[in-house]
Amino acid sequence: MTTMTDHPFDADTAVERAGDRYTAALTDRWGALGGTPNGGYMLAVALRALSRDMPHPDPLVVSAHYLRPGAVGPAEVRTEVVRAGRRVATGEARLIQDGKEAVRLLATFGDLGAAAGRTDVRNAPPDLPPPEATADVLDGGALPGVSITERFDYRAARLPGWATGRPSGEPVAEFWMRFRDGRDADPLALAALVDAAAPAVLELGVPGSSTIELTVHVRGRPAPGWLACRASTRHVIGGFHEEDFEIWDSSGRLVAQSRQFALLPE
Amino acid sequence: MTTMTDHPFDADTAVERAGDRYTAALTDRWGALGGTPNGGYMLAVALRALSRDMPHPDPLVVSAHYLRPGAVGPAEVRTEVVRAGRRVATGEARLIQDGKEAVRLLATFGDLGAAAGRTDVRNAPPDLPPPEATADVLDGGALPGVSITERFDYRAARLPGWATGRPSGEPVAEFWMRFRDGRDADPLALAALVDAAAPAVLELGVPGSSTIELTVHVRGRPAPGWLACRASTRHVIGGFHEEDFEIWDSSGRLVAQSRQFALLPE
Repeated sequence: MTTMTDHPFDADTAVERAGDRYTAALTDRWGALGGTPNGGYMLAVALRALSRDMPHPDPLVVSAHYLRPGAVGPAEVRTEVVRAGRRVATGEARLIQDGKEAVRLLATFGDLGAAAGRTDVRNAPPDLPPPEATADVLDGGALPGVSITERFDYRAARLPGWATGRPSGEPVAEFWMRFRDGRDADPLALAALVDAAAPAVLELGVPGSSTIELTVHVRGRPAPGWLACRASTRHVIGGFHEEDFEIWDSSGRLVAQSRQFALLPE
Repeated sequence: MTTMTDHPFDADTAVERAGDRYTAALTDRWGALGGTPNGGYMLAVALRALSRDMPHPDPLVVSAHYLRPGAVGPAEVRTEVVRAGRRVATGEARLIQDGKEAVRLLATFGDLGAAAGRTDVRNAPPDLPPPEATADVLDGGALPGVSITERFDYRAARLPGWATGRPSGEPVAEFWMRFRDGRDADPLALAALVDAAAPAVLELGVPGSSTIELTVHVRGRPAPGWLACRASTRHVIGGFHEEDFEIWDSSGRLVAQSRQFALLPE
């Protein structure tokens, strides 16, 4: 039997309470270009610690500011419950390595299962062929030196331009994504997944981008199975740009929406 | 001669250092429906205090979580410089009234004048007639009991549905906006202006919405004059929704982009 903790995402975001803080270990399985831990992964570690202290089950909105690159190795997370209300609660988490703060985030939690208000969606999931009829972006492999790409399957109607050495010039992408080990996504994982695919700006021919801030809205608990994703950048100004990301579950519901503020390399 | 501090926005967001904190006073000139101070106004007060401590001039990205309604009256702002780097610096500010925290925000500052990277914009300003050829949404007046509407002029090609009692059913809006007293916008004001217009969801026939979180990206120092704005909501799910907001300056450049996470009234 496979338990949750057998999955790399759960094992590698595990936190342990140690007095007034949590301890964690950032592993080498979620490396971005250059080998530093991916920003969504660091966010998930900090958010997992904070979720232990929150009186409501689901992260609804998370705002993370990235202060320094992370490193593979031990980390601690300091948490603070800022306000615990009846319907929502807000907390803060700080991910610290070697005495230096790498990520600080604010998060408001609630209960997605209790959201009983109106629903009115003016958007549709990406129009993708079924996963089995799409191209495996990494051909069952991974990008050399980018270990996070070993953790996921990505499937698209056509291979993206960056993957074939011919960037399209259009910073948009639609594709399927899932954990390669079969773990289904949950709200905590969604908050990491929005940062787990190739940046849309790769289609502009740039090698990557540095996240300054990432805000994630978790809109629903995802159904099991493949996730349909849409990434886009519309405004690159003086090197700064946003990336918008949507995740739709296998039942066709929007389950996460994110925007990050990032800077192209000089 | 009109000095900056003659303008209500500057007078009402003024902060004074008092030992390890700043003091401020929230006035009754920025009231939302119900009379509580507008969220963008409270953000501006906290951000103005934080900007005093930051080594870089411009807020680039601000993430504010709203904890409690504010009230007209004294406030204090506690600030922390989290990390000061060569190109960007990140800080935290907490707006406190009567011993209770109302807003907590994280903000990363930089120098918009030094942003020398690539520019590639895949979007256009709202396609509006010149301001003098548009309808004055408030007809020179204000919404009764919503004092913030006395501070701005709003002009649109047609009167919005909510203003005529016939909501359109389409939660989108494009309009001109400016401070009614002639003050031009600057980066600090932009961070408040993204929350200073009618929520797009009014076109769904709801009376308003409560902001849980607001993230603002400031993308440029605005040219003087009218600002062209675009507001939209695409995903209302269980009562929770985002609102996206863009501000384009009189020279046709995107100068701010925001997204908030909000909850419709029950």
